[in-house]
Amino acid sequence: MSRFAERTGPIRLGMVGGGQGALIGAVHRIAGRLDGAFDLVAGALSSSPERARASAAEIGLPADRTYADFTEMAKREARLKDGIEAVAIVTPNHMHLPVAREFLKRGIHVICDKPLTGTLADAKKLRAAAEKSDALFILTHNYTGYPMVREARARVARGDLGDIRLVQVEYAQDWLAEAPAPDNKQADWRTDPARSGAGGATGDIGTHALNLARFVTGLVPTELAADLQSFVPGRRLDDNAHVLLRFEGGARGMLWCSQVAAGAENGLALRVYGTKAGLDWRQEDPNRLVVTPLGGPAQIVTRASGATDPASQRLTRIPPGHPEGFLEAFANIYGEAAHAIRAARSGDPVPDGVVFPTLADGLEGVTFVDACVRSSARNAAWVSL
Amino acid sequence: MSRFAERTGPIRLGMVGGGQGALIGAVHRIAGRLDGAFDLVAGALSSSPERARASAAEIGLPADRTYADFTEMAKREARLKDGIEAVAIVTPNHMHLPVAREFLKRGIHVICDKPLTGTLADAKKLRAAAEKSDALFILTHNYTGYPMVREARARVARGDLGDIRLVQVEYAQDWLAEAPAPDNKQADWRTDPARSGAGGATGDIGTHALNLARFVTGLVPTELAADLQSFVPGRRLDDNAHVLLRFEGGARGMLWCSQVAAGAENGLALRVYGTKAGLDWRQEDPNRLVVTPLGGPAQIVTRASGATDPASQRLTRIPPGHPEGFLEAFANIYGEAAHAIRAARSGDPVPDGVVFPTLADGLEGVTFVDACVRSSARNAAWVSL
Amino acid sequence: MSRFAERTGPIRLGMVGGGQGALIGAVHRIAGRLDGAFDLVAGALSSSPERARASAAEIGLPADRTYADFTEMAKREARLKDGIEAVAIVTPNHMHLPVAREFLKRGIHVICDKPLTGTLADAKKLRAAAEKSDALFILTHNYTGYPMVREARARVARGDLGDIRLVQVEYAQDWLAEAPAPDNKQADWRTDPARSGAGGATGDIGTHALNLARFVTGLVPTELAADLQSFVPGRRLDDNAHVLLRFEGGARGMLWCSQVAAGAENGLALRVYGTKAGLDWRQEDPNRLVVTPLGGPAQIVTRASGATDPASQRLTRIPPGHPEGFLEAFANIYGEAAHAIRAARSGDPVPDGVVFPTLADGLEGVTFVDACVRSSARNAAWVSL
Amino acid sequence: MSRFAERTGPIRLGMVGGGQGALIGAVHRIAGRLDGAFDLVAGALSSSPERARASAAEIGLPADRTYADFTEMAKREARLKDGIEAVAIVTPNHMHLPVAREFLKRGIHVICDKPLTGTLADAKKLRAAAEKSDALFILTHNYTGYPMVREARARVARGDLGDIRLVQVEYAQDWLAEAPAPDNKQADWRTDPARSGAGGATGDIGTHALNLARFVTGLVPTELAADLQSFVPGRRLDDNAHVLLRFEGGARGMLWCSQVAAGAENGLALRVYGTKAGLDWRQEDPNRLVVTPLGGPAQIVTRASGATDPASQRLTRIPPGHPEGFLEAFANIYGEAAHAIRAARSGDPVPDGVVFPTLADGLEGVTFVDACVRSSARNAAWVSL
Repeated sequence: MSRFAERTGPIRLGMVGGGQGALIGAVHRIAGRLDGAFDLVAGALSSSPERARASAAEIGLPADRTYADFTEMAKREARLKDGIEAVAIVTPNHMHLPVAREFLKRGIHVICDKPLTGTLADAKKLRAAAEKSDALFILTHNYTGYPMVREARARVARGDLGDIRLVQVEYAQDWLAEAPAPDNKQADWRTDPARSGAGGATGDIGTHALNLARFVTGLVPTELAADLQSFVPGRRLDDNAHVLLRFEGGARGMLWCSQVAAGAENGLALRVYGTKAGLDWRQEDPNRLVVTPLGGPAQIVTRASGATDPASQRLTRIPPGHPEGFLEAFANIYGEAAHAIRAARSGDPVPDGVVFPTLADGLEGVTFVDACVRSSARNAAWVSL
Repeated sequence: MSRFAERTGPIRLGMVGGGQGALIGAVHRIAGRLDGAFDLVAGALSSSPERARASAAEIGLPADRTYADFTEMAKREARLKDGIEAVAIVTPNHMHLPVAREFLKRGIHVICDKPLTGTLADAKKLRAAAEKSDALFILTHNYTGYPMVREARARVARGDLGDIRLVQVEYAQDWLAEAPAPDNKQADWRTDPARSGAGGATGDIGTHALNLARFVTGLVPTELAADLQSFVPGRRLDDNAHVLLRFEGGARGMLWCSQVAAGAENGLALRVYGTKAGLDWRQEDPNRLVVTPLGGPAQIVTRASGATDPASQRLTRIPPGHPEGFLEAFANIYGEAAHAIRAARSGDPVPDGVVFPTLADGLEGVTFVDACVRSSARNAAWVSL
Repeated sequence: MSRFAERTGPIRLGMVGGGQGALIGAVHRIAGRLDGAFDLVAGALSSSPERARASAAEIGLPADRTYADFTEMAKREARLKDGIEAVAIVTPNHMHLPVAREFLKRGIHVICDKPLTGTLADAKKLRAAAEKSDALFILTHNYTGYPMVREARARVARGDLGDIRLVQVEYAQDWLAEAPAPDNKQADWRTDPARSGAGGATGDIGTHALNLARFVTGLVPTELAADLQSFVPGRRLDDNAHVLLRFEGGARGMLWCSQVAAGAENGLALRVYGTKAGLDWRQEDPNRLVVTPLGGPAQIVTRASGATDPASQRLTRIPPGHPEGFLEAFANIYGEAAHAIRAARSGDPVPDGVVFPTLADGLEGVTFVDACVRSSARNAAWVSL
Repeated sequence: MSRFAERTGPIRLGMVGGGQGALIGAVHRIAGRLDGAFDLVAGALSSSPERARASAAEIGLPADRTYADFTEMAKREARLKDGIEAVAIVTPNHMHLPVAREFLKRGIHVICDKPLTGTLADAKKLRAAAEKSDALFILTHNYTGYPMVREARARVARGDLGDIRLVQVEYAQDWLAEAPAPDNKQADWRTDPARSGAGGATGDIGTHALNLARFVTGLVPTELAADLQSFVPGRRLDDNAHVLLRFEGGARGMLWCSQVAAGAENGLALRVYGTKAGLDWRQEDPNRLVVTPLGGPAQIVTRASGATDPASQRLTRIPPGHPEGFLEAFANIYGEAAHAIRAARSGDPVPDGVVFPTLADGLEGVTFVDACVRSSARNAAWVSL
């Protein structure tokens, strides 16, 4: 029987990380709030007591649920009658393991930003911690929350594409095309191996690209060859990666991720080609999925339209033509998490149709980064996954 | 001194209309919640007591704040110490006046869906009611909440386009291209003159198109010539309208709104041309504004990018390339309302830069519908506005 | 029996107008040459003898087939054993009638640029001249030569769209957004009523827009209401027009043409909506036709692809994905003309499937311009067509 | 002194290959004719005498200039007073060497389709033959004839992009996604190693992709790693290739070519990213070049517009907004060839600004195919170029 068996209503959520100036913390807060499924009630938003207090006050957290120390937060919240049922971890990568461990061991569900950890060793430790816990572990590979990504996945699964032959996936940005300003918090930790981990672009966005391809196609990558670069002088992590992929069953792929592609904003794009049809989805225009049956014509399938699969319809809120975006997709991950957390109250399994990225996906991501780095160090030799 | 002078934190919000099966009520609820500025605490979601109760329960409203009668709600909430500070009115058009009046007279701010009313007579009565009240009146012409609409407005205002010559605006849908199913609640009241008012497409979406053009250009329309049609047999209101516009200062325009344009979803699009440049914005791709200086090249200005004006930057939440959509734009109207409502607590004016559609805009919209109907009845003769 | 009954091989072509600095003459020459169906062998490229000679030499015309006087050319070519079988008329509008008359009366086929004439009176005279002649009259409403325009027409004709309700057509340019430089030959005559005729934008591009709508839908316009403007100070002809259209059978339309839409290049676009589907074609992206069945999804039909109709396939040269453009479409008009001219050699009718704009289309165009001017003079009152 | 020193007027052209049913022969014929610079006067369109005759008759070649044997054609044409000055070779790849050799040795200029040859050995022999000849050798890497490709090249050359870091180039088709019908001539020889050579997709379209990247960036590739596939059962040549590229100076790239990408038509696309800006060009929308300065906004530069460089302006024929396409680009290669051939008459060098792909480019292409095949055979190991 779950210790949260008696809970009803919105899920009480805590947050670790996400203090003033952080981007992704604010995104998680909106995502949790958008559908009314979560109430943020506690937080250790910063490891600096002063910053933690100021950040908490700014977003209206009560002082007695504000912490500077995540371990203390985990301990105390676990004891409170109205303590948090789940925690969102939005720290730099190197903190994911130590933070998650404290909450998992106390049965508090974890919603963790990606990549899972900075290193493969940490990822394995985190897996061990999760396996020992009853709590759920949800990884916010948020792009899997887009309805038309669900649509793409459903169409592959129902055989519309035939046998998959090719995967072309890319995630291009330009925000690190030059050495960042010293006060750019986002850039600061992401370009620091101690906090970001072994991968730069590969970890930050390459893992998203890989996960998206995996999520839509279901294909298991078996090996990769990666050519990593650090174009900006002095940079210690990759800021661009060219990766060849081979999948079980013979499909092949290319993955490109870059933080130095001048003019690119958040150009995550997936194209998949099978024996019967292809598909094309772009996160910068996310309400459309272009489906290209062999022999044509191409079809523009729009979110929430009559042509869509129930798998995508269940994650939309508004009619076709009214665009939903990044935050709604992110909220869909929180929504899926809420379904699972509510089921867990009574010990039920995750309901049918509810899908979210888990620790296993996170481990794949960190394995991908590790493989990229090893392959690149060996002049882009093939490395097994 | 405002009766809400002591209030802090989220604004307590009530809702009239928006029961089960309603679309726009759910949109308003998300919009109020997205940035955490409003707490929905009371509602008369339906005039049927049973439906009102069931609808309220579904969204977690407490039973003692659930009403079947909006007048009772207005009276009781006005007396409660923690009563609502604002009410969202999301009923069919013909109810806007009677509902709004009850709340306005008790100093409760009104956030009202558009069009303002079904008839011009009602609109004028509502204006009178609002003038007698200290409360704010916010009309949810939600497209004005899109950051790139703000960007367009800022660019016109700062003179980038020179003198405006031409306005091309359209709002095309196809959801009423056939007689709707009998159980389609949305279609039912919108095609019924008793509840929708004098206009069909003109009222439902033509008012949005006009308001968008007005908001971006600042131009005042002086007369129009309208050719209205009801293509679907038996339909009693227009489902398509072709409108010529003339503006103060000599600019001219065309406005097309349709609910029968097969394949169109929510194709609201605005193009404006001045002596120096043009611009093009489309709500189905809302994060981009195409600006076309005479002599070129065209520029694609993206939301939150470095090229944007502070007027649009202040209404964005996430970096460029991560799309924001319809709900975020709607939430921006609620955000502007929140700024104004908080200022009103201490009797301050609406803060600089905060802009939202008001009763005056609503009156313009209803006047537009009335003029379209009158012009069309006179074979598209020019009618003054 | 045709006087050209013995002819085989490429059609001998003459040209009137199109001297140095002219744009459309060069376009006609390429169009005639592209498929090898015409040989340009004679010309009166300018009324100035010196310019006529220099222009002819530049394009390789023999001196003995170079004329300064089109009447002399018509007389002499009609007598030559290897004289021209057809003449391309690419003069300013006011010269179409006098030039065409000379060739028609001598049985020489006429390929004439649009609009047919500058005035309705001239158009009627030209019709009379053509009726008295055995020669063919082909009007280069060149946009009807685009394969995907043919595709659109075929789809309407075969009922894919159901009953047509709406036509939205526009042709936007910006090249006359400011007073043109004095040495701009193109602009000079087009803004001069004496040479251009009654219409400015309406004549130069509005006629194209109307013809495109007519060609695709087959609908007959019965009346129009037009609001014409001359935005540029001192301009004597319209540079922008907003037109409401009514068609036989109840369909309605809007037509916008402009030469002052900053940033627009040659934005001819047609959208048609019927009871079953819509379609969207844009000349700036001419190899695609977007078809939108009610209920979706939208389809992108590409030129020469398997999804296309024989009516468009017969006018393509290269595989899908390799774009064809403006010149190929223009050449298709010449190709259709060649089919008709070859059939005329033996007195055969125009072969099945061959379609080109004729004098009747030209007369419709001039009637449209005349009606626009009359309507606008009466404050956009309805005028019958 | 050239043996063609006395020639004036259009260049007399012969053709080898390109008989009935061939695609590329017809394209070359249009390209030569479009601007009036070439007259096709002789041909050995097929090695079958009957087919050669029938094909020649169909396109109007005189019987006495029709050959079944290209050697005989070369010999006789070289002796004729009005013999051909240039020959277009449009045979399957394996015939390029033997045919070209016969004409080169007689001083007749060669315009040869790509790839240069089927094998590297043949390519080297052809280079030797060309070095011994005074005649010009033009290779129809036709995409370099697109004005906006010239624009891209000019912008890279003038430093707009800063130092190039990344090249992403792809050419995706789907026409070989299934085993072709037995009577598909195009597919037949292209999938036969004896006629196509060592490469399938790599040779047919990969060489175009590489050449395009080279032409625009000027970067010299130093090594590549290629993963080649033959997805269609029984296929003996690659139908898909994933290639990593490294360039002199440190730039990196990815090249993808495919003939099995369901839904792709002729998706040649090039993206280049430098320290200051990026650019994006797509042959399916070839009149636009998107330029993305770091810091934005993106610019849409259109062919023939005021924003373009003289290097692209000189290769356009019509105003912006009127699309030019594949045939015009191909004709531009013929146009460049014509400039060079006319200069050669008097022994002058190729005029300034005239640029066309040569044997050196062809050798690079064949070297690329050879390297891809070798790399792939070694499990995508790096191979020097």
